[in-house]
Amino acid sequence: MNRPMLVEKMVDVIKKLPGVGPKMAERLSYHILKMPENEVEKLLDSIQKARQRIKSCSSCYNLSEQDPCPICSDTSREKRILCVVETPQDLIAVGKVKEYNGLYFVLGGALSPLEAVGPKDIRIDKLIKKLKTDNIGEVIIATDTDSKGEITAIYLAEIIKKLNIKVTRLGYGLPMGGDIEYADEVTISRAIAGRKEM
Amino acid sequence: MNRPMLVEKMVDVIKKLPGVGPKMAERLSYHILKMPENEVEKLLDSIQKARQRIKSCSSCYNLSEQDPCPICSDTSREKRILCVVETPQDLIAVGKVKEYNGLYFVLGGALSPLEAVGPKDIRIDKLIKKLKTDNIGEVIIATDTDSKGEITAIYLAEIIKKLNIKVTRLGYGLPMGGDIEYADEVTISRAIAGRKEM
Repeated sequence: MNRPMLVEKMVDVIKKLPGVGPKMAERLSYHILKMPENEVEKLLDSIQKARQRIKSCSSCYNLSEQDPCPICSDTSREKRILCVVETPQDLIAVGKVKEYNGLYFVLGGALSPLEAVGPKDIRIDKLIKKLKTDNIGEVIIATDTDSKGEITAIYLAEIIKKLNIKVTRLGYGLPMGGDIEYADEVTISRAIAGRKEM
Repeated sequence: MNRPMLVEKMVDVIKKLPGVGPKMAERLSYHILKMPENEVEKLLDSIQKARQRIKSCSSCYNLSEQDPCPICSDTSREKRILCVVETPQDLIAVGKVKEYNGLYFVLGGALSPLEAVGPKDIRIDKLIKKLKTDNIGEVIIATDTDSKGEITAIYLAEIIKKLNIKVTRLGYGLPMGGDIEYADEVTISRAIAGRKEM
């Protein structure tokens, strides 16, 4: 006795989502089969609309409905400071800190020799191009504090210093081995205040 | 700095799925935004197809693409024994046991005085109607062994005995407080062999 083929297929596809095991995929699938029609529509609609309308900002690669994104087009921001983060989620976390009023750049990941992620797999060339054209005075590196984020920070710092731009790394306050996205606002705020030249 | 409104909406909808917390919903949402278009299509398509084509069998209420389902239309099955389960997932678990060759009935839940789930909220009337018309000789009650499943089993046994039909409950082998769906085949097999009259 097996599950109907179409349920099996749904479980297989949902199982591939991050953090979803086979049992969770099964539970979600049967839940979706039982949901009222209007709730399923809401679910599918929210995914489709977000996929259609959310784009990468062509200037900072943040996710946004507009291009340039609201941050890049905000004239009240300090345009000479650039905070480099790995992901749009990290940008949201840093963005909660009121003390920071500069711009951002989303790398789209971190260097990882073990996983064969090299400089060409993330937006390092685009970052360098931006630094050269946008008259940036300081780059704050806010990559994660795990080994990949640290390697990326060191790699970036070397390149950026050669461009005669000040490079800082988020300072004390950040626990080692963590993910910027999950840090609380006070911790990130302290880290910005205590940032150190690299 | 907040997430784009459409991302926020997607997170809100995904957060309502069972077992998905706010952080997991965020992680899934950003993952879906980054997925290749054909994978998103597969995900949405598998949900839509399953929703459209998977129905309840009008005889046993199992989920199936056909009506009656493959089990109810299988002429080689013993039609006088009926195994009553709470959910289609439980049916799949019992169905893995080769020793059982009877039919099924899916209640669609269990009685729960605390959650105000009464006999009219699950398919007890439909089960009784089926017992009266289908010449069933024995009902094996395979509801979960938690308090709701036990209450349901006792309630069903009283009614079914009045119809002069033999009622049994899955016997030893089932750990108490568990969910049938997660029991292994050997445990379910033993429970069927050791079923007791109620």
